[in-house]
Amino acid sequence: MPTLDTKLTRLLNLQYPILSAPMAFAAGGRLAAAVSRKGGLGIIGGGYGDPAWLEAQFAAAEGTPVGVGFITWSLRKSPSMLTDVLKHKPVAVMLSFGDPRPFVDEIRAAGAKLICQCQSMGHIMDAVDVGADVVVAQGSEAGGHGAVRGTLTLVPEAADYIQKMAAPSVLVAAGGIADGRGLAAALMLGAEGVLMGTRFWASAESLVHETHRAALLESDGDGTIRTQVADIARQLAWPIEFTARIRHNAFTRRWHGHEDALRKEAGTVGPIYRKGFAEGDTEQTGVFFGEAAGLIHSIESVDTIIDQVMEQAVRRLEHRAVQ
Amino acid sequence: MPTLDTKLTRLLNLQYPILSAPMAFAAGGRLAAAVSRKGGLGIIGGGYGDPAWLEAQFAAAEGTPVGVGFITWSLRKSPSMLTDVLKHKPVAVMLSFGDPRPFVDEIRAAGAKLICQCQSMGHIMDAVDVGADVVVAQGSEAGGHGAVRGTLTLVPEAADYIQKMAAPSVLVAAGGIADGRGLAAALMLGAEGVLMGTRFWASAESLVHETHRAALLESDGDGTIRTQVADIARQLAWPIEFTARIRHNAFTRRWHGHEDALRKEAGTVGPIYRKGFAEGDTEQTGVFFGEAAGLIHSIESVDTIIDQVMEQAVRRLEHRAVQ
Repeated sequence: MPTLDTKLTRLLNLQYPILSAPMAFAAGGRLAAAVSRKGGLGIIGGGYGDPAWLEAQFAAAEGTPVGVGFITWSLRKSPSMLTDVLKHKPVAVMLSFGDPRPFVDEIRAAGAKLICQCQSMGHIMDAVDVGADVVVAQGSEAGGHGAVRGTLTLVPEAADYIQKMAAPSVLVAAGGIADGRGLAAALMLGAEGVLMGTRFWASAESLVHETHRAALLESDGDGTIRTQVADIARQLAWPIEFTARIRHNAFTRRWHGHEDALRKEAGTVGPIYRKGFAEGDTEQTGVFFGEAAGLIHSIESVDTIIDQVMEQAVRRLEHRAVQ
Repeated sequence: MPTLDTKLTRLLNLQYPILSAPMAFAAGGRLAAAVSRKGGLGIIGGGYGDPAWLEAQFAAAEGTPVGVGFITWSLRKSPSMLTDVLKHKPVAVMLSFGDPRPFVDEIRAAGAKLICQCQSMGHIMDAVDVGADVVVAQGSEAGGHGAVRGTLTLVPEAADYIQKMAAPSVLVAAGGIADGRGLAAALMLGAEGVLMGTRFWASAESLVHETHRAALLESDGDGTIRTQVADIARQLAWPIEFTARIRHNAFTRRWHGHEDALRKEAGTVGPIYRKGFAEGDTEQTGVFFGEAAGLIHSIESVDTIIDQVMEQAVRRLEHRAVQ
């Protein structure tokens, strides 16, 4: 298969310009290792900080070079987690949702690449300022946490800023990318590769309940909503600028738009939410997939997903010959 | 210059696969005619229905073949507007924001192409069902009215649906497209061309106050917000699913999130809004541009805009050779 040689593949020594998102709870060592073995870079989801779980996921990666991602505002509460995972020599550490500055030196000193995920031009400026090796511009289409800018405008605006600053940061697009069309479009917009979440969430190797995967397959791209209600129910202290895109279900219909009432009832709603999540309920809990659900029609192995994405991207790029 | 031959250029006999959006108040006959003369299709903004204004805009187009667009739910209140403009033999009639069915037969009978702008898969299904000649998939990045889906996911999902239904409709991407990167990306996603609003709003030929144009040039892509407050202040009966993306200014900071209070005070806020809009105030009124503001750094003529978009798109498409 032809490949796509970009600044991203050269920086990280990859065969394909594809990263997997460090989705909390869903992106474990098995998924990350499968993506890396296939020629992309897999990133374990550090989530809200469970050291034993992270140890188990690095064990599941069986020594395959992978990255690890953290929710930055959460990591500030337990910074020793970073120190612990750096012992595993991750290829890269990805920081999302908060100021990366407190962690930059330690990541650098460990020899890991720094990936900063950004949801606005303000974040992009911060990432360039700290000299991020990779800047991920993540649009609102993404499943799970994110913000309001669309991928289609944030990526080229970020590219212009990186160029204007003559920064060495390599730009990656995220949010709504699940197939080769999205990869080809991202390259046209000025990205050097893509980070995909929902597509790998719907893989054989993810840590996602079967019923949640089935709910994604039944959904089109209209079937999600960007909302605070999952975080309010779980009493997670997410900064106000970030929301999570999840399946629009009985839970979101009940509470979205009634956030103040949910805050008052979080003590009773929260346990129902967490029990439902653990048991694979799809109505009374958050089901974390993005708008790309409408582009995904089967659960596939990581190998098949990457083969299909690359094949379609290359075909599109070759087909659209200029007349 | 090389061109891009697509189903859209063939259907509408265009030189370039570029449409201009029928922006209410901003897209008059001069803008539409300039786009059509350059080789795209310009579309006059029918807005909320002012027959005398529309007559003046068709006069300003000086017989150049152009289209005309309507806000569908508003047109239902004064359907004779459609009958009146069809006398000018528009190339196409574009319907957005409502059920197109009541108007399809009259548009067809007049020999005009039917363009349906869609913000969700539900809308796409309606547009395919009525046999729209052109389906515009408009993402949330767009300035002015729209909804929540991102362009990057809505376009390929719409392409898949059109293919699955074996429908003759030609797909166009809108929302966040302001340069050749956006056009090239849209083609990768499966669109046959683009509809641009904000880029043409920021042209020499648009009917936009100079101070509003200056506010766009000062803004990056983070500087807008999708909100109901402009419509509430104007007491316009927009269906709840649609919001307008406008500059985030003193007006939106005061009222966004306080919609119920604004409804009560619309009688006093509305006149201030309308006076401010007419006079070019940029803080106490809606300034209608989209996230693409961050990609626009100068006001240009329509000729220059189309030349630059085409040149950049063709360069991108040629450059990204597969290794």
